[in-house]
Amino acid sequence: MKLKALSLVTEELRLVEEKMREGAEEAYGPLAGAFLDLVMSGGKRLRPTLVILSSRFYPADIKKVVAMGAAVETLHTATLVHDDLIDEAFVRRGHPTLTALWKNRGLIVLAGDYIFAKSADFAAETGSMRIVRLFTRTLMTICDGELRQGLSQNTWDQPKEDYYYRIYAKTASLFSLSTQSGAIISHAPEKVIQSLEKYGRYLGMAFQVIDDILDFVGDEKKLGKPVGNDLKEGIVTLPVYYYMKERPENREQVIAALSSLDEDREDRVSELVRDIAVSGAIKSAYEEAMGMASRAKEALADLPDVGVREALMELADYSVAREF
Amino acid sequence: MKLKALSLVTEELRLVEEKMREGAEEAYGPLAGAFLDLVMSGGKRLRPTLVILSSRFYPADIKKVVAMGAAVETLHTATLVHDDLIDEAFVRRGHPTLTALWKNRGLIVLAGDYIFAKSADFAAETGSMRIVRLFTRTLMTICDGELRQGLSQNTWDQPKEDYYYRIYAKTASLFSLSTQSGAIISHAPEKVIQSLEKYGRYLGMAFQVIDDILDFVGDEKKLGKPVGNDLKEGIVTLPVYYYMKERPENREQVIAALSSLDEDREDRVSELVRDIAVSGAIKSAYEEAMGMASRAKEALADLPDVGVREALMELADYSVAREF
Repeated sequence: MKLKALSLVTEELRLVEEKMREGAEEAYGPLAGAFLDLVMSGGKRLRPTLVILSSRFYPADIKKVVAMGAAVETLHTATLVHDDLIDEAFVRRGHPTLTALWKNRGLIVLAGDYIFAKSADFAAETGSMRIVRLFTRTLMTICDGELRQGLSQNTWDQPKEDYYYRIYAKTASLFSLSTQSGAIISHAPEKVIQSLEKYGRYLGMAFQVIDDILDFVGDEKKLGKPVGNDLKEGIVTLPVYYYMKERPENREQVIAALSSLDEDREDRVSELVRDIAVSGAIKSAYEEAMGMASRAKEALADLPDVGVREALMELADYSVAREF
Repeated sequence: MKLKALSLVTEELRLVEEKMREGAEEAYGPLAGAFLDLVMSGGKRLRPTLVILSSRFYPADIKKVVAMGAAVETLHTATLVHDDLIDEAFVRRGHPTLTALWKNRGLIVLAGDYIFAKSADFAAETGSMRIVRLFTRTLMTICDGELRQGLSQNTWDQPKEDYYYRIYAKTASLFSLSTQSGAIISHAPEKVIQSLEKYGRYLGMAFQVIDDILDFVGDEKKLGKPVGNDLKEGIVTLPVYYYMKERPENREQVIAALSSLDEDREDRVSELVRDIAVSGAIKSAYEEAMGMASRAKEALADLPDVGVREALMELADYSVAREF
C-alpha cells in the first residue's frame, strides 16, 4: 500500500533519519555500529510520521519536530532491543537482532539503556518541559505494561480491561505521545492537542489489536516469527477472549492448554492457535479494531487543515487494513 | 564516622526518602514492593546529600531540591538493578538483590527500565530544561562507561586515560550532576555552578579510586562481596596499573593471569590479587585518590557560605578515609 501520508513527510523523515544516524555515530565504537544498524533497518517510521503530521496544523519549528520524531523512533528502538533480549528473538525486520549478534547479555541490557537515554536526550532538545514530562511518563507506562504482561503470563481469567490497559501501555501510549508532542510543538490550542491525543491513542489500540490478530492468521514470512507466538508465551490477547466467550468448551480448552506444563503443552497450544485462527473470534476482534480506528478518525473531525487531516485518516485506515 | 554534613541535611533527606517511597508505591504491585525495598535499603544517600548541600549557597526551592535528590538516588538505584543482573550479584548492602529474588531475568531488565524512567521523571519535576538535559547526558555517559568496561575486560594494555574516563563515566558523572543541579536550582552564578561541578567530579573520581583499592584490601564482610572481584571479572583498575609499573615481572604476571583461560585462571588471579594487596601499588593509588580529594576541596575555595563549604570539605575527606 502506497500511503499519501508518507509522501507528505518525506523530507522531514529524511531529517529524522539523519538525526538518528548522528546520534548513533556519537556512541562508543561497537555500540555505534549496532545502534546504526538498528535505527537504519527501518520499519515504517509510523511514530515520527505521526509527530510530523500532528505538527502541521499550526506553524512549527522544524528542528523541534525532527528532534521529537527522532525521540519517539529511538525510544521504540530501545524497547525492541530489550524485548528481543527478553524474548530471545534472533530476527527482527529480516535483520539479526543484537541478541543474535552479541553473546554477552549484559552488554545488550546496557546498549538498550544507552538508547533509552539517547531517546530522552532527543526529547529534551524540543526545549519543552511539557513534552519531557509526557515522555518520561510514557516511558514508565511502557515498562509498566511490559511488566504486567510478563507477570500475567498463562493467566486466562484476567478481566478484559487488563488487556486494553496492556495494549494502551505497550503500544498506544507511544502513539499518543507522538501525536500530542507534534501538536504541542506547533503551539496548537489545548482542544486540538486533546483531539490528537485521542486520535493517537485509538490508532495505537487498533494497531495493536490487528497485530494480535495477525499473530493468529498472519503470514509467518511477513510476521518474521512463527504464528501463535503470543499464546505460546502464555500471552492472552483479544482473539483469545472472544474465543473463550464463544462456547464454554472453548474456555475449557484454553485453560487446559495454558495450564498444561508437561511436554504436550506445545501440541495443545498449537492446536488451540489453529482453532482460534478459523473461529469467529478473529472476525469479532477485527470488528473491534475497526471500531477503534473509527473513533480515531472521529477525533479528527474538528481539526483545521483538510489535507493533513486526510493523511491522518488514511493512516487510521491503514492501521486496520494491514495484510492478513 | 559521624558526618557533620549529614546532620545538616537530615530534614531534606527525610523528604527525599518520602518522595522515593511515594514513587515506588505508584508502581505496579510486584514491582512496587521490590522498588520500595531497593530505595529503602539505604546506602549513604551521598548523591542526594550533594544535591542538597550544593543548593545551600543561594536560596533554593526546597521542592525542586527534594525532587532532584530523589532523581539522582533513583537513577543510582536503577543502575544497581541492571548491574546486579549483569554481574549475577545476589547480595547488595546486606539485602538480597532482585537478581536473587526474581527468577525471570526479563522482568528484572524491565524493572530497571521502569526505575530509570522514574528517575528521569523526578528530574523533570525540577522544571529546569538545563537539568533535564544534564540528566539525559549523564545517563548516556553512565551507560557508555559501563559498556566500555564490559568491552575492555581482560585488556591489560589500555591506556591509563581509559581508566580515568571509565571512573568518571560510571561514578563521577553522577556526583557532578548532583552538585551542578543543586547549584542550578538555587540560581547560583555560573562560576559557582562550575566550581561545584569540578568539586563533584573530583570527589566522584576519588570515591571510585578508593572503591577500587578496597576491592583489593577491604574487609569482605563490609564490602559484601569477595575481595579481588574486579580483577576476577577482568576489570583492570588503578592498583593494577601501578603494580604493572613497579617491575617488568609484575606486568608479565598480570598478562599471564588475565590471558589464562583454563582452570588455573582462578588460582592465578587470586594469587595476583594477594600480591597486589601487599604491594606498593596500593599506596600509590591511595596517594592519587588523596590528590583528587584535594582538587575537589580546592574547587570550593571561592564559595560563599562557610558552614556548607566545610560540610562539603568533610565529605571529600570522608571519601578517601573510608575504612580499609
